[in-house]
Amino acid sequence: MKIDVCFSPALYPAYHSPDSIVVVADIFRATTTIVTAFHNGVRSIRPVATVEEARAYKEKGWPVGAERNVQRCDFADFGNSPFDYAPEKVKGKDVVFTTTNGTKAITVAREAFRVVIGGFINLQAIADYCLAHRRDVTVLASGWKDKVNIEDTLYGGALTETLVETGRYQTASDAAIIARDMWNTHKRRLESYMEQTDHLPRLKANGLEGSAGYCLTLNIAPAVPALQTENGTLILRN
Amino acid sequence: MKIDVCFSPALYPAYHSPDSIVVVADIFRATTTIVTAFHNGVRSIRPVATVEEARAYKEKGWPVGAERNVQRCDFADFGNSPFDYAPEKVKGKDVVFTTTNGTKAITVAREAFRVVIGGFINLQAIADYCLAHRRDVTVLASGWKDKVNIEDTLYGGALTETLVETGRYQTASDAAIIARDMWNTHKRRLESYMEQTDHLPRLKANGLEGSAGYCLTLNIAPAVPALQTENGTLILRN
Repeated sequence: MKIDVCFSPALYPAYHSPDSIVVVADIFRATTTIVTAFHNGVRSIRPVATVEEARAYKEKGWPVGAERNVQRCDFADFGNSPFDYAPEKVKGKDVVFTTTNGTKAITVAREAFRVVIGGFINLQAIADYCLAHRRDVTVLASGWKDKVNIEDTLYGGALTETLVETGRYQTASDAAIIARDMWNTHKRRLESYMEQTDHLPRLKANGLEGSAGYCLTLNIAPAVPALQTENGTLILRN
Repeated sequence: MKIDVCFSPALYPAYHSPDSIVVVADIFRATTTIVTAFHNGVRSIRPVATVEEARAYKEKGWPVGAERNVQRCDFADFGNSPFDYAPEKVKGKDVVFTTTNGTKAITVAREAFRVVIGGFINLQAIADYCLAHRRDVTVLASGWKDKVNIEDTLYGGALTETLVETGRYQTASDAAIIARDMWNTHKRRLESYMEQTDHLPRLKANGLEGSAGYCLTLNIAPAVPALQTENGTLILRN
């Protein structure tokens, strides 16, 4: 089986394969936050593309998470920090969610065999899911407004390494080789490597850098959220 | 000043900046071949997007270079190998040129302040050109049918390192950091690193791997071809 890494939603048409599992990654912080919410007992998350849609759901009484450019939208119950989604706040609930980059990537990939939500915090759980389904895999890095970013590419490398190391997967393209190589070069000093990224200064400018360490910790939230294509809602899978 | 690296023509809208110099790279082999032709005395090269356009020029008597999927088109005078463009064949001539990926990237970037043609063989000449013009720089990697490839990304890293080392340029984004990092990790064993790329097997399958070493040799053809936007033709600049 093959694993590929698509560095930006704008490249997805070149990497699309209808029979593959697509793993969407927006490490800082949408997908880390979604995985955390499921680990903490949320029942479903409905990703929506625009702030207007999220606001309309809020007016109908849904709990809503909404972020644009790192800031929580004023009408929302939650922002885009994993710490907002504590068990006592989300357990058993159906939440609507919109973020700058992560929800767009989920929408872009919806024609795939299955779309699942990845982060360093559920790395092994996603790898196990892929191995159990015996399918080709494409990591879709959310990037930042279609630009390539380090943290999502690096996650693609981490999942590539994890699957290739089992002997059951091979890299599908140069992009997977580049990402795997990045991961193997930097995995022992992740946080210091991240210091030079575009996004960490954005988090720091908003006093949110405290969540960065959490977003980079392996396997602390082994949940596998997956998209139900029939209704566009994320639920837990195994 | 800033240097950025755009990993694919499909990402260019996210990296476009109208005041920047865009350096188009298609190391295997369109841009290496164009630089070689200018180093060997060609007067101009007109890049065209389609085989049909190239054929129409041939019928009007122009010398034509044309390649699709690594193979020379049957009607063409030259293919996409730098060795086809020897001084005695190209000196003083105006050539029409079309290739699978490289000519598309040139067209995509034509709205930039200036489009120049880069390769490892003119690395320092391009760096000197950028330094002389005191402009922001974007390397546009041609990739393979919109997918990211190793060799063009690595060239982006090489030019990033060359310009950042002068102290006059900074990396503009995570993409430039990723590419520079790749270059610094692999520059001492370029050919063995390239062994794992997607494209080298394509060249080998067509008996063309002999040109790979040439395409990876630094500074043996210090020419700077640039696009004249008014007529879409490449000419020599300094």
